[in-house]
Amino acid sequence: MAQEKKLVESITSRDVDFAQWYTDVVKKAELTGYTSVRGCMVIKPAGYAIWENIRTELDRRFKETGVENVYLPMFIPESLLQKEKDHVEGFAPEVAWVTHGGLNELQERMCVRPTSETLFCDLYNKDIHSYRDLPKLYNQWCSVVRWEKTTRPFLRSREFLWQEGHTAHATAEEAEERTIQMLNVYADFLEDYLAIPVLRGQKTDKEKFAGAEATYTIESLMHDGKALQSGTSHNFGDGFARAFDIQFTDKDNTLKYVHQTSWGMTTRLIGAIIMVHGDDSGLVLPPKVAPTQCVVIPIRQKAEGVMDKAAGICNVLKAAGIRTKLDDTDRSPGWKFSEQEMRGFPMRIEIGPKDIERGQCVLVRRDTNEKIQVKIEDVEEESAKLLDQIQKNLYDRALAFRLEHTYGADSYNEFKETADRKPGFIKAYWCGDEACEDQIKADTTCTSRCIPFGAEGEAPEDATCICCGKKARKLVYWGKAY
Amino acid sequence: MAQEKKLVESITSRDVDFAQWYTDVVKKAELTGYTSVRGCMVIKPAGYAIWENIRTELDRRFKETGVENVYLPMFIPESLLQKEKDHVEGFAPEVAWVTHGGLNELQERMCVRPTSETLFCDLYNKDIHSYRDLPKLYNQWCSVVRWEKTTRPFLRSREFLWQEGHTAHATAEEAEERTIQMLNVYADFLEDYLAIPVLRGQKTDKEKFAGAEATYTIESLMHDGKALQSGTSHNFGDGFARAFDIQFTDKDNTLKYVHQTSWGMTTRLIGAIIMVHGDDSGLVLPPKVAPTQCVVIPIRQKAEGVMDKAAGICNVLKAAGIRTKLDDTDRSPGWKFSEQEMRGFPMRIEIGPKDIERGQCVLVRRDTNEKIQVKIEDVEEESAKLLDQIQKNLYDRALAFRLEHTYGADSYNEFKETADRKPGFIKAYWCGDEACEDQIKADTTCTSRCIPFGAEGEAPEDATCICCGKKARKLVYWGKAY
Repeated sequence: MAQEKKLVESITSRDVDFAQWYTDVVKKAELTGYTSVRGCMVIKPAGYAIWENIRTELDRRFKETGVENVYLPMFIPESLLQKEKDHVEGFAPEVAWVTHGGLNELQERMCVRPTSETLFCDLYNKDIHSYRDLPKLYNQWCSVVRWEKTTRPFLRSREFLWQEGHTAHATAEEAEERTIQMLNVYADFLEDYLAIPVLRGQKTDKEKFAGAEATYTIESLMHDGKALQSGTSHNFGDGFARAFDIQFTDKDNTLKYVHQTSWGMTTRLIGAIIMVHGDDSGLVLPPKVAPTQCVVIPIRQKAEGVMDKAAGICNVLKAAGIRTKLDDTDRSPGWKFSEQEMRGFPMRIEIGPKDIERGQCVLVRRDTNEKIQVKIEDVEEESAKLLDQIQKNLYDRALAFRLEHTYGADSYNEFKETADRKPGFIKAYWCGDEACEDQIKADTTCTSRCIPFGAEGEAPEDATCICCGKKARKLVYWGKAY
Repeated sequence: MAQEKKLVESITSRDVDFAQWYTDVVKKAELTGYTSVRGCMVIKPAGYAIWENIRTELDRRFKETGVENVYLPMFIPESLLQKEKDHVEGFAPEVAWVTHGGLNELQERMCVRPTSETLFCDLYNKDIHSYRDLPKLYNQWCSVVRWEKTTRPFLRSREFLWQEGHTAHATAEEAEERTIQMLNVYADFLEDYLAIPVLRGQKTDKEKFAGAEATYTIESLMHDGKALQSGTSHNFGDGFARAFDIQFTDKDNTLKYVHQTSWGMTTRLIGAIIMVHGDDSGLVLPPKVAPTQCVVIPIRQKAEGVMDKAAGICNVLKAAGIRTKLDDTDRSPGWKFSEQEMRGFPMRIEIGPKDIERGQCVLVRRDTNEKIQVKIEDVEEESAKLLDQIQKNLYDRALAFRLEHTYGADSYNEFKETADRKPGFIKAYWCGDEACEDQIKADTTCTSRCIPFGAEGEAPEDATCICCGKKARKLVYWGKAY
């Protein structure tokens, strides 16, 4: 049957062609679809449900820190985009321009927001007058547009979904604290909810956001050894405030500029989930983010009592808050197993006449394929326990993978050889000079991913730059990146 | 203090200048803000939190009927928009055009979606092949753009937030059933959750959606006697399917066109809440949709034990699931009362030293200003009960208002006089001829709002058209509309 073939058909192996494997998974797990709009993706129900879970959980964590949601216009007049010099240089080359509204040409063209710093500044200029108006802790969930030349679903597309937080504070210290706080919200979210271990650190000046004083980042390692920047948090100091004249009367009755931050996460995270956890059978979803956590698959479903028992188990799990569905279609069990694997549901439960005779059913883990026989009366408890184990195992496995694929380098030759032959992170000292970053990129295509926080990021007295051999200032994680 | 004055300052009375009253409420309740982007609004935290509640509740109701969420591109290539003739005629004059991406002119210009029928059709053309692929029950939450000349917050702006459902079915009957089903979801949502009574009915051909076979609508009556179209559901028949070639192989092995529907609701609903329930003290929010349902206001808060008791009450209510906050700022109680009224929190609780002595506190209803003394140990139960009563009273009051402002008309002169002097709905018979609708609009600015469902919408044998006097076919609710 054509329909049956579609999903079961094997996909490209990760190790043969990782890019093709990714495309296969995205397509066969039905995460995205295509329309005639070039470079823009359709996020289909299976993909969008993942995004909904991400959004709900992140939003909850934001609100716990006092953040409030707002919605700002999707258009930015050209004059507004131009107010902050570094910012416009960073974004103007990659925006989409609206030139006509209705039947008339606009007096001033507007771009579709690539990010909304300028709009938030415009609002803050009007709304902030006194120290009583601070802090502003605003966030919005929306889509943004960047006119990319080459695109890939979730990783790089002309339009993507994200959240962008924009805060304004009375002092530099408070802004810095918020910048770090939100980076930690992101890091905890990835590790706890998406089971993706991250490096936390600072971007070099070369890699920081257009207009920022400092950019902090979390970086994760994909299965092909390439890094993915998974979330960033920027401290703007008072640069935007000066460009947009955002001043407030402080308690001491003097006029001061506010200090601002912004921080964002995108649908890229879905790409990260795929590339960190997926395998040659398809998608593997960590239980916490999985829209469907468990599928119950009856074996010999026409045999007496099987469908009843399967439905009963499904209901018990649902009542216990486990997102479960029953596959009662007329497809074969084998087809259903493959589908569960391709779609990445964390576990399945098989139950047939023989199981029922013995008063048991079989739990099958997506992450290890392990089969576990459990008594039907224990199915709720055992399933909950298993989902916890799967969540933990996915994290541990990804962390072990990253550690195994993180290398040191004592000489530039070793660095180049590792970059060439061993995909992963390379930890190496750096003098702080952008010229060395450029050289390393030219020689290896590696970029500086981050300078880790704290003692780890500081170079010892006698350390030398991996590239130029001069005195080193920082330890940097280098890598090839998406 | 300047800060204190801002909110307490009185607003324009509804009866003096309704439009100015609306603007005052929107501004002073801090629902929206302004940026330099003309015709587009900023939705501030107090406004966006209402939208979040609307979205969460509607989304839950959609999903109960099997609807799945997706996300489609925000751009529509011009050639795609032009595929369905009526549709392009309806929307082309009011769209925003993107002509440049990055530094290059586009080969084909694209509009920012004013609605996404064409994109869903483009997707369905690719994804629907067999009866097994049906039905498709997709919805998306997004923003859309229509290049309006005059704008008002929530009611009419160049960009607004909405949901748009787009379904595809194997048969005409199934499509019609879904169209009505979603209209009923909308109507129930307004009546139950927003406490807004609605008329349900069909639009005349003149008023129906561009490209639809039939448009169904819910209409509500604002306090100034003007109607607001509050939600619409369209049956497209197979018109779009023919234009976009969306065919499937049915069970009988023949190729057939799908039948489609679409249905949408927008941030206009926030305008409806304001204009149905608000009063001269500001916003009045129905408890179910109110982001803050209750505010606890300590009286003589520095007196011993007052803040503790107030905080205790706040915690008890929160634990009971009532969205409560404690106002522990240093402003006067009078200022806090005004603020609660302006922001439309459904109830407040006042508690001071004398109350504590008597073991009681005072509940104050926003809808009636009634004060109710309750024992502190009963505060949870009494508050929950009161919120139910307020929800019900707001609905009853709005329904009574609509019934009082719904008029009949035996002659065209009476119709014109009522239209001139008595704002509200006018029920009158109509021959079915568009010329009469045009005449009525020219004479009175009234439009046909809807033909009610069932027997009510059918004209009796001897009824005549209110305008031309010929034989009537339908009963129509007429009104001036936003």
